[in-house]
Amino acid sequence: MCFGCKGKGSERCSLNSIIDKEINPFVDKWEEEGQFPAHKVFKILGQAGFLGVDKPTEYGGMGLDFSYNIAVAEELGNIRCGGIPMAIGVQTGMATPALTRFGSDELKKQFLVPTIAGDFVACLGISETGAGSDVANIKTTAVRKGDEYVINGGKMWITSGSQADWMCLLANTSEGPPHQNKSLICLPMNLPGIHVAKKIDKLGMRSSDTAQIFFEDVRVPCKNLIGEEGNGFTYQMLQFQEERLWGVASALTPLETIIQETIDYTRQRKVFGRPVLHNQTVHFRLAELAAEVELLRSLLHRAVALYVEGNDVTKFASMAKLKAGRLTREVTDSCLQFWGGMGFTNEVLVSRLYRDLRLMSIGGGSDETMLSIICKYMDILPRK
Amino acid sequence: MCFGCKGKGSERCSLNSIIDKEINPFVDKWEEEGQFPAHKVFKILGQAGFLGVDKPTEYGGMGLDFSYNIAVAEELGNIRCGGIPMAIGVQTGMATPALTRFGSDELKKQFLVPTIAGDFVACLGISETGAGSDVANIKTTAVRKGDEYVINGGKMWITSGSQADWMCLLANTSEGPPHQNKSLICLPMNLPGIHVAKKIDKLGMRSSDTAQIFFEDVRVPCKNLIGEEGNGFTYQMLQFQEERLWGVASALTPLETIIQETIDYTRQRKVFGRPVLHNQTVHFRLAELAAEVELLRSLLHRAVALYVEGNDVTKFASMAKLKAGRLTREVTDSCLQFWGGMGFTNEVLVSRLYRDLRLMSIGGGSDETMLSIICKYMDILPRK
Amino acid sequence: MCFGCKGKGSERCSLNSIIDKEINPFVDKWEEEGQFPAHKVFKILGQAGFLGVDKPTEYGGMGLDFSYNIAVAEELGNIRCGGIPMAIGVQTGMATPALTRFGSDELKKQFLVPTIAGDFVACLGISETGAGSDVANIKTTAVRKGDEYVINGGKMWITSGSQADWMCLLANTSEGPPHQNKSLICLPMNLPGIHVAKKIDKLGMRSSDTAQIFFEDVRVPCKNLIGEEGNGFTYQMLQFQEERLWGVASALTPLETIIQETIDYTRQRKVFGRPVLHNQTVHFRLAELAAEVELLRSLLHRAVALYVEGNDVTKFASMAKLKAGRLTREVTDSCLQFWGGMGFTNEVLVSRLYRDLRLMSIGGGSDETMLSIICKYMDILPRK
Amino acid sequence: MCFGCKGKGSERCSLNSIIDKEINPFVDKWEEEGQFPAHKVFKILGQAGFLGVDKPTEYGGMGLDFSYNIAVAEELGNIRCGGIPMAIGVQTGMATPALTRFGSDELKKQFLVPTIAGDFVACLGISETGAGSDVANIKTTAVRKGDEYVINGGKMWITSGSQADWMCLLANTSEGPPHQNKSLICLPMNLPGIHVAKKIDKLGMRSSDTAQIFFEDVRVPCKNLIGEEGNGFTYQMLQFQEERLWGVASALTPLETIIQETIDYTRQRKVFGRPVLHNQTVHFRLAELAAEVELLRSLLHRAVALYVEGNDVTKFASMAKLKAGRLTREVTDSCLQFWGGMGFTNEVLVSRLYRDLRLMSIGGGSDETMLSIICKYMDILPRK
Repeated sequence: MCFGCKGKGSERCSLNSIIDKEINPFVDKWEEEGQFPAHKVFKILGQAGFLGVDKPTEYGGMGLDFSYNIAVAEELGNIRCGGIPMAIGVQTGMATPALTRFGSDELKKQFLVPTIAGDFVACLGISETGAGSDVANIKTTAVRKGDEYVINGGKMWITSGSQADWMCLLANTSEGPPHQNKSLICLPMNLPGIHVAKKIDKLGMRSSDTAQIFFEDVRVPCKNLIGEEGNGFTYQMLQFQEERLWGVASALTPLETIIQETIDYTRQRKVFGRPVLHNQTVHFRLAELAAEVELLRSLLHRAVALYVEGNDVTKFASMAKLKAGRLTREVTDSCLQFWGGMGFTNEVLVSRLYRDLRLMSIGGGSDETMLSIICKYMDILPRK
Repeated sequence: MCFGCKGKGSERCSLNSIIDKEINPFVDKWEEEGQFPAHKVFKILGQAGFLGVDKPTEYGGMGLDFSYNIAVAEELGNIRCGGIPMAIGVQTGMATPALTRFGSDELKKQFLVPTIAGDFVACLGISETGAGSDVANIKTTAVRKGDEYVINGGKMWITSGSQADWMCLLANTSEGPPHQNKSLICLPMNLPGIHVAKKIDKLGMRSSDTAQIFFEDVRVPCKNLIGEEGNGFTYQMLQFQEERLWGVASALTPLETIIQETIDYTRQRKVFGRPVLHNQTVHFRLAELAAEVELLRSLLHRAVALYVEGNDVTKFASMAKLKAGRLTREVTDSCLQFWGGMGFTNEVLVSRLYRDLRLMSIGGGSDETMLSIICKYMDILPRK
Repeated sequence: MCFGCKGKGSERCSLNSIIDKEINPFVDKWEEEGQFPAHKVFKILGQAGFLGVDKPTEYGGMGLDFSYNIAVAEELGNIRCGGIPMAIGVQTGMATPALTRFGSDELKKQFLVPTIAGDFVACLGISETGAGSDVANIKTTAVRKGDEYVINGGKMWITSGSQADWMCLLANTSEGPPHQNKSLICLPMNLPGIHVAKKIDKLGMRSSDTAQIFFEDVRVPCKNLIGEEGNGFTYQMLQFQEERLWGVASALTPLETIIQETIDYTRQRKVFGRPVLHNQTVHFRLAELAAEVELLRSLLHRAVALYVEGNDVTKFASMAKLKAGRLTREVTDSCLQFWGGMGFTNEVLVSRLYRDLRLMSIGGGSDETMLSIICKYMDILPRK
Repeated sequence: MCFGCKGKGSERCSLNSIIDKEINPFVDKWEEEGQFPAHKVFKILGQAGFLGVDKPTEYGGMGLDFSYNIAVAEELGNIRCGGIPMAIGVQTGMATPALTRFGSDELKKQFLVPTIAGDFVACLGISETGAGSDVANIKTTAVRKGDEYVINGGKMWITSGSQADWMCLLANTSEGPPHQNKSLICLPMNLPGIHVAKKIDKLGMRSSDTAQIFFEDVRVPCKNLIGEEGNGFTYQMLQFQEERLWGVASALTPLETIIQETIDYTRQRKVFGRPVLHNQTVHFRLAELAAEVELLRSLLHRAVALYVEGNDVTKFASMAKLKAGRLTREVTDSCLQFWGGMGFTNEVLVSRLYRDLRLMSIGGGSDETMLSIICKYMDILPRK
């Protein structure tokens, strides 16, 4: 894949080449250190154009449609961990869609342009300690005083939170009903009163830093508001469609890679005098899993095509996200088993992804949240 | 859906209208009797054009591409049993593709034209008692004597076998290697020496008659050979692609119907003071199943599109068939549970389809056969 | 097994001998007819002592503990259908425990003695159309008028309902709170006002008749009350422990038989040049299922031992019942698959039990009811 | 539990007290460091008697039967990680049963006595790089030269391998058939030529060190042979029964603990305005899992009782081990989900055990090895 060469046509700007040369050789080290250098990596990606594939050209993007961003997400799956693609996904598909769509020109120049260029690292501030998937229930407030918002509260599980230059923050800007009192605000992370409380020690996604952040009378200009006040919940729900489709896309290549590496390993590993792969329970199981991956890819591409055509694909995106969560657990667990003792070491990709991809059922809306959304769209969710 | 009105535009020729007026009111009776009147039903469908949607216009078909046949298959799922759609599928998608593609003009006039018109009922003669999914291992022989083949042996599990006017027969026409010694032959079923041994008493698909058939020195003209002698296995493998895609398509509407009827029933049935549907385990489970159905549909449509473009979709067709087999068992079993005692009666569709659709994992190539094919295409099947 | 020979020591009175000579040769016929001759079969079993293994000797029983009744239930699993064992279970383990424990001597002489002897066929009247697993919600009333109860309402899903001489009826005898307003009553089935509305056409268990029954001003003497008025719900909950353990026990032998017959069949059936059993996915799957059966048996025997010692085993009985429901679906479905086309016929036991044992998750308290009970005992059921 | 107080009756010697005071407070630190101080911990356990519960009193054991060792294993499950119990299991149930049963008095004095006392740390040397579950295929040789064995080769996945004082080594002592050419040898780990190649970096069980070890002309006296030369494979197969039952027992308490901690956490964690536990999919799922744990416990206790009575319980032990492997994956994965983001951190037990217990399906004979053994005992394993 090479969207970025802009006529120079050299291979150095292709995404796979960047992954092979600038990212994969360092993944083990960054995983060990618990953080990858987001600014350095994003600058490389930004220069090659991969942080703005579907963003408008006037802000430095390529102006392609969303399906190209999905294609990038699939290719980012060649990175040999889940954490770095996730941080890229936050940058391109989670923290910026609402800004791109509803933000003022000034705001986009200030935040979107450097984010697409790779000069800024972005994070998304939705989850709180008492409200992970339950977005309507957040407690952080942004109270308008003069032409500033004064922000108090805190955010949890913030990907890239320790390194980010700015946050797309969801906060309560009034006391109205929970779906109409929220706003999205571009919040520079170097303001007084912002405390990165701790970097969270996670089961997986270890090269991606995840932070808990507190706000204490943080003052930000009102013009940093994205779109209209009170529309934050609605914008975020829109933004979630892209986040979920992106998340599904990012899982496809890792699943295929694990299946293929398991094939390769079991083909050469002999137990009881024959390759492990020759066991029918092994090759049949790998075939089953490969079939499930193709099912998922088919639904993703169908949903993306409908989305690009302008449809609401919340139901299909939620179905795909649900399946991605279930399937990543199934594929990593089943494949790990076929590696025997090696699968239980930290030397093989399958065991890293067994940890990393476990997040797929939890982050970006848990499986249970997806089920609720699907039920809502099927009109079978009981009213409270 | 109405392909067949040919400008007359009346509603009477639409497929749904035929199903509602000419088929569904009689399904219970035909299920009870263990056979539906294929000649009568097929004549109606043939007159409206639905037996030749993707067949050439010169033989009475509509000349549309295969995707239209898939659309018909999905709509046939509105028939309230599995047996009748299956018999239609044999007529349009299983017994006739090879004849259409490789048969002589004379043969097509003799067999294809009346089959498309609904005057002939067709059956497909592949399986034998010792060789269900193992097609290469069939024993029936067709020995050339002069300008006739003399056929001996027998066929098993023959859908419409008791009513058929002709059979698309696979037989060994030489003693060569098993993939090159077989031929497909159009065999009129009223020839001397053909014995319908018995109608098989089945778990489900009861309105579709299924027969065991013996051949004792049956003589058929050599010109009844489809295509070239020795190519039968290859032709049949091609034919299987359409059969499997058709089979998957035919299951989608029943799965949706069951889910919807379960929603309707559990919404009005109260247990412990509230609708059964309000149980989270019920509506979440229905949402999961609905997601799986959409996954299957997405893969089917992707495979059909690729097939229409001329690609070999054996791997995707096999994946879809495998999933259809697994999913029909899961959906019918899970939904039946939510009907409580009613689910255990013969009064509700879900219990009929619990029996009927159990065949999906067995017929048209079992799940295990699908897994072998997928493994072969993934190059992970051990060589013997 | 031979409890019943009373010193005569001949083999003819052993249970297996009765099953082999008096029951199994006729099962196909009775299944076809939709009813087995309960009076004839029960008389044979009663004479040999098998209908009162754990009943007091003064009423014709053997006076053994409940574990012997479980042993009988396991052996009854040798009957080649699910319907007849179920009817025997109603007779010995479902309709009579409360009568035995709480009934007056007179009542026991009138109803228990002939039931143990096999002269009476008993049924249990709990479920109603609007209340299957939701026992507290039944609507049938027994209003005391003088020294009679006048009964109105109806019962649904009544095993042996068309043939029974008496019913152990649960009815509301007052308007108090739902757990304290119910009573169990011995109701002769030949009283005026009792209408057997219809024999229900079921998916499986076809040799066992199942009826819907209506009561219209049925008058029964008050002395037919079992124990104390208002205790019916409590008695029934106690009775359910035995019913559920009995139900689990009755499933074990069929599960083992299916696994063994599948082994035997797949060992001799060759596909692709080797016995089906030699496929690793086949023999590994059978081993998995056999392991699950042993797990279930282990929990059953542990629960029975605790019950015989006087413990409340509601939680363990519910866990075992839940597992039995799940496992019978899994074993019958998985094994049926390995029979290929034969599994889809009505000629093999596996397809009959695929239908019959589907009831295990529905009858005697559905899986969902079991889960609620387990939750209650784990103290994790939300209060309403 | 207090077997060890020997009349002193004080609480300080009870196992739970040791776990609470001497082990659990340090577990996080030892997990972080990648090794627990086995000599220190074992000395404490040895003094209290817990390393020789079922060992003969003449060698310092308590002389109780094997069921007491299982009771200890269940109680060790209160340790808040999987690695330390596993190392204790190696010491008491894996490296020493054969020595106890077949070793000479001199050998037992030299190795068994200090191992029971907690002065020696033992390890078991079976697995090799090319032979994990495939014991018959090991390559390490012990060649008799005079009255010494000269050992060459290497061992892999050796629990406590970095800290052990001696290894119960399986090596080929002749070139005969693979089931008759092996011997078990007590190998002091401080001999010249023994190289601990590396400590393996594992997915879980991080407080237990696991080593790869090489042997280069290691000389050990022939009197260190356990029992008779050539019987090593047979001894090890016997030893495996205890190892597997011990392994199953060690998993029960962690499974219960996870379920209980998940109940406690979800009861207080509110999402969408109500405790997470109040979701029916949550409490029903926890009930299902609790039922499965009771099923496993029931089979374990049944197998142990049979074993203590002198029976070969290889089939039941293998069934229980298989189930333990499957169930630990299911319980940890399902419960982790209900912790939301917290489940993905390293701060909670469930995420540690999600990693640690993943070994249950791999170590001590993989699930697939268990299936093969069960098949062998069911006589359905194809002969090669």
